[in-house]
Amino acid sequence: MTTTTTAPKEIIRNGVNVTKLAATIKAIGQQPKLAQFKFRARNQWDIGGHNQATVDSFYGTCQEMEHKQPFVMDADEPTVLLGEDNGANPVEFVLAGLSGCMTTTLAYHAAGRGLNIESIESEYEGDIDLHGLLDLDPNVRSGYREIRVKFKVKGDADEATIQELVRKSPVYDTLANPVKIRIEVEKV
Amino acid sequence: MTTTTTAPKEIIRNGVNVTKLAATIKAIGQQPKLAQFKFRARNQWDIGGHNQATVDSFYGTCQEMEHKQPFVMDADEPTVLLGEDNGANPVEFVLAGLSGCMTTTLAYHAAGRGLNIESIESEYEGDIDLHGLLDLDPNVRSGYREIRVKFKVKGDADEATIQELVRKSPVYDTLANPVKIRIEVEKV
Repeated sequence: MTTTTTAPKEIIRNGVNVTKLAATIKAIGQQPKLAQFKFRARNQWDIGGHNQATVDSFYGTCQEMEHKQPFVMDADEPTVLLGEDNGANPVEFVLAGLSGCMTTTLAYHAAGRGLNIESIESEYEGDIDLHGLLDLDPNVRSGYREIRVKFKVKGDADEATIQELVRKSPVYDTLANPVKIRIEVEKV
Repeated sequence: MTTTTTAPKEIIRNGVNVTKLAATIKAIGQQPKLAQFKFRARNQWDIGGHNQATVDSFYGTCQEMEHKQPFVMDADEPTVLLGEDNGANPVEFVLAGLSGCMTTTLAYHAAGRGLNIESIESEYEGDIDLHGLLDLDPNVRSGYREIRVKFKVKGDADEATIQELVRKSPVYDTLANPVKIRIEVEKV
């Protein structure tokens, strides 16, 4: 006796494989440890405001994983901040990360809800007062005081849904709410 | 009568022009608005987990400014997160930004204190539980629960000083403490 099975057709929406997304959610429901991810970067200082971050390995689905290739990112400061402008500066990297995360979160969650998205554009602006970093005023924080975001979206999702979905972003949550950061220092 | 003036010799330490750093601090003391900076990014979604952030203009020292060139950053998700791995993912960009910022803040503040630094290397690892992003558990946050940082530093600064200086980093503050994020959405 032979049995013929046909693979179910995969649903792709917004470029997201919704069939695999549903399978991932089901698998995590059965084995919660699959959901634990660890992301990493390492950094090597060059000189002044110039340094280089490398991202290659991460941990997820209960195993060590590697990106297809290492991603190397140069950070520097513009001349006005005494650098040589060989890369975006670190606070700009944070806005880039926020932008990527809110965009992807919208595309993925909309796909999961059956909403087709045609285009997503967004702009980010954040305020930093150097009185904080330069120790000129103890009442001024060194980081972003406020970040403003503007989305332009073409697709099925209405404004309220978009406002809801972009706030599910991990980087949005990382910035909007405090994160515990542990620091070890070794003199070499 | 002629007057001969000699420019004071500039002090460069850790690649940081300490003479200009002191002049910047003095100028901000006299005109506090010089310290107000606005950093920016914009993002264009491609498809699925792939999108592109661009950083070019910013505002500071009471004027609009441009980087020497636009910095373009591709973000994507690895295959296990249903992307095509065309770039670091957004939460990895945040670690890259944190790494660049803590490194630069250490180099600059050490320079200001007369401490010579020979090398700075650092590693970052952050925990994300997908139960948050995937709406599987309302008690799990979508962003980083904890970030661990390890510094290896060669130079004059002692461990306690390094621990103090890296925490002055604007991205450290941005992550460790909540940031107000305003979001506008326009359907196009």
